[in-house]
Amino acid sequence: MRDAFHDDLDKVSDDLVEMTTMVGAAMQRATRALLDADLSAAESVIAADDDIDALRREVDDRAVDLLARQQPVATDLRMVVTAMHMASDIERMGDLARHVAKAARRRYPDGAVPAELHGTIDRMAQVADRLVKATGQAIAAKDVQGAVEIGRIDDEMDDLHRAIFAELLGHSWDHGTEAAVDTTLISRYYERFGDHAVAVAGRIVYLVTGRYGSSAEGLSRR
Amino acid sequence: MRDAFHDDLDKVSDDLVEMTTMVGAAMQRATRALLDADLSAAESVIAADDDIDALRREVDDRAVDLLARQQPVATDLRMVVTAMHMASDIERMGDLARHVAKAARRRYPDGAVPAELHGTIDRMAQVADRLVKATGQAIAAKDVQGAVEIGRIDDEMDDLHRAIFAELLGHSWDHGTEAAVDTTLISRYYERFGDHAVAVAGRIVYLVTGRYGSSAEGLSRR
Repeated sequence: MRDAFHDDLDKVSDDLVEMTTMVGAAMQRATRALLDADLSAAESVIAADDDIDALRREVDDRAVDLLARQQPVATDLRMVVTAMHMASDIERMGDLARHVAKAARRRYPDGAVPAELHGTIDRMAQVADRLVKATGQAIAAKDVQGAVEIGRIDDEMDDLHRAIFAELLGHSWDHGTEAAVDTTLISRYYERFGDHAVAVAGRIVYLVTGRYGSSAEGLSRR
Repeated sequence: MRDAFHDDLDKVSDDLVEMTTMVGAAMQRATRALLDADLSAAESVIAADDDIDALRREVDDRAVDLLARQQPVATDLRMVVTAMHMASDIERMGDLARHVAKAARRRYPDGAVPAELHGTIDRMAQVADRLVKATGQAIAAKDVQGAVEIGRIDDEMDDLHRAIFAELLGHSWDHGTEAAVDTTLISRYYERFGDHAVAVAGRIVYLVTGRYGSSAEGLSRR
């Protein structure tokens, strides 16, 4: 039988999973805004970020309330603290989706990224989608193997980020400085989105095993 | 008379202030590495970031230990939780100093930033120094006015960041794409350094007043 504490903690976990769904949807829509120069998609991502921020505050408030009322110790305590850290990382992923949307809006009706890089950005968005889904599942199931897999998926993001920089720094770049600045920042937003998923994964590994896993180490190196 | 809980909490606060001193020193040294193309300065910043990460883990561990042993409620509880959030932001400031140092190392013996922007970068470093000092003082004194002032200092950082971008996007940029990419990222590292100081300030305002202050709002907009 479940007690009140674990019912409350399940609600916190559900909210974290919901946050991953929200930031995943935001990054997909931001990518459409960017690649299709779709202003209304950009505006909707920017507006919807408030909902992500609000849910993060709810998670924090509920976690503090849990600590005050139930005074958990040991693993239970660690789960509550970890939830707050995860909420912080996932909220930041939402901010990064908003940054992509703002870059799209800033250059509208032009595109912020040269057409020949659209394929790479699209693949970054696909990796972002796999990352948020894997993150949501790992949170829901407290799944260490799933968390470790997140680090591997993020390696693909890093490869794509490097591919973008290879284009930027190659001799054939003829799109000018403005496009270089935009592309630099946008590529970094996707890369950082992945880093925060890895940070969440590292928290799951630590929560379950008591050790900082390779995922957490990976993050601290960036 | 102080009880054990508040003695422990003072130790956490002291560690946070020490962290601000460490990340401040790191950003100053990283700036020297960048502007003087000083490889050993760059290496020392990169190596010393482990110490900042280690102190952050100590703060987290001590905070969790405080929660478990003392089971604080109300304001005491909020202070412990806030300390963990602050540690996260300050650690990230150390990461950003490391990023600046890595950019300097990557281009050594060349400079990563064109000489005519050195003055602006130097001013960003001066603003960064004022920010970490104000942040350390505001943490130590739980000073709301000091925290609000941090937002104003950060406005200067944002102005300098915009000045860099005006140079990048002006017609007179003739330093090529690689320097544009480096300068974009480096300017953003300083700007984000300031954002995290503002986030810490917002936490202080919330801790003391129970309201999200203008500083915290400022952060969530970025």
